[in-house]
This record gives sequence, structure tokens and C-alpha cells, in this order.
Amino acid sequence: MEITIQKKILEANESKAERNRRYFKDKNVFVLNVMSSPGSGKTETLCKTLKMIMPKIRTGVIVGDICTRNDADRLEASGAKVVQINTDQFGGDCHLTANMIEKASKEFDLDTLDLLIVENIGNLVCPAEFDIGENARVVVLSVTEGEDKPLKYPLMFQVSDAAILNKIDLLPYLDFNAKEAVDNMKKVHPGMPVFALSAKTEDGFTPWIEWILYCVNR
Amino acid sequence: MEITIQKKILEANESKAERNRRYFKDKNVFVLNVMSSPGSGKTETLCKTLKMIMPKIRTGVIVGDICTRNDADRLEASGAKVVQINTDQFGGDCHLTANMIEKASKEFDLDTLDLLIVENIGNLVCPAEFDIGENARVVVLSVTEGEDKPLKYPLMFQVSDAAILNKIDLLPYLDFNAKEAVDNMKKVHPGMPVFALSAKTEDGFTPWIEWILYCVNR
Repeated sequence: MEITIQKKILEANESKAERNRRYFKDKNVFVLNVMSSPGSGKTETLCKTLKMIMPKIRTGVIVGDICTRNDADRLEASGAKVVQINTDQFGGDCHLTANMIEKASKEFDLDTLDLLIVENIGNLVCPAEFDIGENARVVVLSVTEGEDKPLKYPLMFQVSDAAILNKIDLLPYLDFNAKEAVDNMKKVHPGMPVFALSAKTEDGFTPWIEWILYCVNR
Repeated sequence: MEITIQKKILEANESKAERNRRYFKDKNVFVLNVMSSPGSGKTETLCKTLKMIMPKIRTGVIVGDICTRNDADRLEASGAKVVQINTDQFGGDCHLTANMIEKASKEFDLDTLDLLIVENIGNLVCPAEFDIGENARVVVLSVTEGEDKPLKYPLMFQVSDAAILNKIDLLPYLDFNAKEAVDNMKKVHPGMPVFALSAKTEDGFTPWIEWILYCVNR
């Protein structure tokens, strides 16, 4: 019974997501859904990303957390408009839904934006199941999380259009085989681009920034 | 409506969890539910923990993952009996339920055990909402995940009886304020014991092992 109910919830979300996608297309805004475990460095990666793309692409950000405005405050330092969703008002939901994105997107003047980045709740499972009407999905995995995560959480890597392997500055101090991690990602999602970078040192950002520019301008 | 359905699912789980708890009490087995984000080092911490407690406490392990038997294989090296639950058979559930634990626990001869450790699915949100009939809960946070996680995911820290701050061997290479992280844990759960340790180097394990022994023998 639980599975049937979950299916219905997912179907209702799906139709709202399609409505969002049509709306964003009308407004000519590209929507990027960024997902990962808690603590993989999504926010820091996006802070640095905004700094690099803001001169070229007019960008807004929606950030989801169960509690706190910490991430919104950090992201706003870039100068981008940021809307924080706190899901503790929605029963502490562990993922963003199309419904939440519809509401939050009304707080932007989308005619003045090229790109809307959505930083999802830190969770490597549930956000992968909820389409929010995005145009592309990115999963962030950090090198401290272990090489086997793509095999253990395959759906997240299958639904993503690109992956970031973050915190490569820590590689010298870890028993982490980056090649094995990337091989595991390609095993569950052949051909997916993987950008190895360090949000801390800003190493490796060029191909990632080029990929975003390509997505937004094509 | 979604929230009402979730409430009913949680209530049904709650009554099964109570039944599990009575059953474990009859069998005189202490059940420890270990939770965290993916990649915080739960499995490595438990591998080292088993090595240290197996001579003193007869221990079994149930390990939950969406896919793979990787963790079970690692944990079995300790000599403990390990039962792997894969939730992809249950629609890819992002948490263990009382129902799954009831089934898995039947695979042990509980009369020969003092302690049953449950390694939950890697997820800092949903497992906190699902009682499985355990006697105590432990949350593992690693120092690479950021000091603010207890404030952003408060429920997990509120429902836990103890916390492990793992990967302290990496502190010299991070901008991580361990005192702030512990303060944030105590803010959301005053008085909760926090064990700072490194599963890699085995530093800091003594108070954690003593706490387990105290729980099992009291």
C-alpha cells in the first residue's frame, strides 16, 4: 500500500513539474537542480560558481534546507538573488518538490534571468525521485565519501546529467581512488561528464563553468 | 493529504517497532541503530568497533543499503554474523523500517547475542523518523561535512542518544571548527555525549567502546 501511495504522490509531482518546465521555457530560463549528500560542498561549489558566471549569466538561486538560512546567506554574498525554502513548514520534507519550486520561482522576475540554480536538500536518495521541472541535474560527490557511493545510490547518478567530484584538494590525505569513483559513476551512467574540482582552492572549475555556459546558451 | 498519509505510515511503523522492542527485550538483546549521511564512515567505524568489542560482547549486525552487499562484506571480516537488507526490493526506500528489522532479526539466533547493531541507510533525514524498535540511536557526523549540520538537520541529532564525530585525523587539512560542531550538537540536544574519533587511525575509541559496554551491561 505504501508503494501505491508513493506512486500517486510521484505522479502528482510529475505533472506539476511539467507545468514548471513549460513556464521556465516560456521565460527562457534554464533551471539546474544540484543534489548531493549533506556536507559534500554544494553551497561552497555554488558560491565559487556564481562568482565566475555572474558577469556572463544573470543567475538566481533557490536553496532548500529543512532548517536555517545559512546557505542562502552564504550564496547571497555573490550578489545573486537567493530564495530559501525551509521544508520544516512542509513536515520536514527530505527533498524539494515541484510545488515548492513553483511557489519560490514566483519571487523572481524571471524575465531578468538566464539561469535559475536550485540547491536541493542534502540527501543522496529522495531528491532523485522528485522532478522539480528542471532542465538538467547535477550530483556532487566529495572525495571523502568513498568510491562505492555511485553503486550504492545508483538512481541519483542515473538521473543526473553531470557529476562533480569535489574536495580534490584532500586527495593527498585520503585512501580514496578517484579513478575508481569515476569508473563507478560511468558504470551506472555511461557517458556522463564528471568534473573533478576543489571548491576550496578553485582548481578544476574551467570545464564545469564551460558546461554551464554551454547548457544555458545552446 | 501527503502529510496525513505520512502520519499513518509512521503510526503503523511505530506499533511494529514497539513489538520489535518487546521481542528484543525478551531475548535480552540490546539494539543500537547507527545513522548518518552517506560517506561519514559508519561502516569503517563499525568494523573497528566490532574488532574491539567482539571478545567481550556477542554481537550481530544488520546493515541497510539501497543496493550492493559491500558493507556486509566489510563487516563480516570481523567474524560477526551480518545480514544485509537491500531496500531496492522495497521501492528503494531511503530508511529502514520496523518491518524490515523484524524480518532480518529472524535470521539470527538471538539467544546467542548480547548486542545487535543496525547500520541504517546513509541519509541524515528520513531514518530519524522511523523507529525500528532499537534501544539507542547513534548519529555519525564526519569533520568533512561542516559544523552547521546539527542545526540544518536537527531531528537526527535530537533523536540520537549519542553522536560520533568521525575522521578527526583530517582536522589538520580542513577549515573545520570541531568545537563549533560539538556546540551545535549540544544546542539541539543538550547533554548528548559526543565521541570524537578516527575510524582510520583508531584514535579516540576508548570512551565510545566504554559507552557501548555500559549500554549493553546495565
